[in-house]
Amino acid sequence: MIIKAEERKPSERRNPCGGEGIIYGLGSVRAEDPILNTRISMAAQMTLAPGASVGVHVHENDEELYYIVSGHGSYIKNNGDREDIGPGDVTLTRRGERHGIHADKNEPLVFFAVIVK
Amino acid sequence: MIIKAEERKPSERRNPCGGEGIIYGLGSVRAEDPILNTRISMAAQMTLAPGASVGVHVHENDEELYYIVSGHGSYIKNNGDREDIGPGDVTLTRRGERHGIHADKNEPLVFFAVIVK
Repeated sequence: MIIKAEERKPSERRNPCGGEGIIYGLGSVRAEDPILNTRISMAAQMTLAPGASVGVHVHENDEELYYIVSGHGSYIKNNGDREDIGPGDVTLTRRGERHGIHADKNEPLVFFAVIVK
Repeated sequence: MIIKAEERKPSERRNPCGGEGIIYGLGSVRAEDPILNTRISMAAQMTLAPGASVGVHVHENDEELYYIVSGHGSYIKNNGDREDIGPGDVTLTRRGERHGIHADKNEPLVFFAVIVK
């Protein structure tokens, strides 16, 4: 199946997971509109405005992958360490792990996020 | 965890799944180097050279998501129908379904692929 770019559902969330500023989403697969027979419960292109962040949070019952599309920022790893990220980097947060992400380089940070049950 | 862009493993495959031409990969997660405690068995940025294709094949024991990064092409769906695809489109091939992809628009087609067990 194809979920066309123009069919994506826009979203806007302020202070995501206790972070700063706004995250803009374009959701292809959403928890609100689950697709049958897949472990993928969310797939969306996300944009953090410059300075915005997703606060550190734990993935108790699923895992999440990020693929950085454009921009630079920093990623907070499971152990709390912060590391610079940029285009082509992939992050993986496994079940029980935590993470956060921060557009702290004065530019928008665009990434594609996939949550797997 | 972060898999940095510069740590990705390049690959080159001719006639993938019986398709035409060459597909170039930059693998972040690879079946050859499995990561513990994740359902994600493969995550890679793929580039089909103009004219190249991945032949139609079935996903018996896993599912695959594509996120189209750049370029245009066509996607062969589970029912055999062919549909144009471009940046921001997402495709999902669930367990037991089949798909193919073709850079048939005279430009490279770049997509990020994730296989979930």
